[in-house]
Amino acid sequence: MRSDWRPPESEAFRLRPIGWVRSVLHDPGAAPKQNYEGAPEARVEIEPEFLPALDGLEPGQDVVVITWLHRGDRTVLGVHPRDDPANPLTGVFATRSADRPNPLGLHRTRLLRIENGGTLVVEQLEAIDGTPVVDLKPLLPTPAARPDRPTSDG
Amino acid sequence: MRSDWRPPESEAFRLRPIGWVRSVLHDPGAAPKQNYEGAPEARVEIEPEFLPALDGLEPGQDVVVITWLHRGDRTVLGVHPRDDPANPLTGVFATRSADRPNPLGLHRTRLLRIENGGTLVVEQLEAIDGTPVVDLKPLLPTPAARPDRPTSDG
Repeated sequence: MRSDWRPPESEAFRLRPIGWVRSVLHDPGAAPKQNYEGAPEARVEIEPEFLPALDGLEPGQDVVVITWLHRGDRTVLGVHPRDDPANPLTGVFATRSADRPNPLGLHRTRLLRIENGGTLVVEQLEAIDGTPVVDLKPLLPTPAARPDRPTSDG
Repeated sequence: MRSDWRPPESEAFRLRPIGWVRSVLHDPGAAPKQNYEGAPEARVEIEPEFLPALDGLEPGQDVVVITWLHRGDRTVLGVHPRDDPANPLTGVFATRSADRPNPLGLHRTRLLRIENGGTLVVEQLEAIDGTPVVDLKPLLPTPAARPDRPTSDG
């Protein structure tokens, strides 16, 4: 018998949007696939009830924004990376595809400033306008004891 | 009027566990706060229906495991970092606290091997036994064009 925690049929396991992406990007097909491929500066408008959770975030800080890629197809388990049919079919957990069972997006970026107490201006974000944001975390430095590790965008 | 996408009251916005952590860690209080603080090797048992999504993952690869920290308190917006009352109260989005509106955990680790076609053995993982896993992604290298960026565990 399994003893794992299973979500009850209530609000558990259900994400709440903590904010929304505001961006000049509107077409997922035209958006860059990764931040470093030329993503624009963007805003994250935090929902008023969650503003106290921003205390301590500082401009210049590197952060991870976690989004819900609401246009992702949750039934897809394999994709041709970068939408190129020449690339072999690959399991979605080996890719950053937005099509996946839980379409969470990880976006490493830098906080430039906070406007009006609740709008985060971030250096670059490849999510389209209106994308729900579900979490925000500071980046952690890779410990010096692990110099063999590649750097990462999260 | 807002045009943001809002989750309908169905399965949208609800996470599905894609697997479960198997670990010698059972007590959240005793678990290390970050992987590099001595987290043990662990297993992630992928649910059978999602096995095709593993195709292409290779031993030795650096990955991000995203968990649902089911013991997190979703009503908490501020914490004393590292549970130390001497640290000033800080918004949870400026911390890696498990207490947060959407208790998602980001765990950077390395895939050591895949056993029995569906059990991932990872080098270190600070999540406790039975923690639901909701996503798995390859780490992306930080682009060479951004050498100013610190390395990150995601």
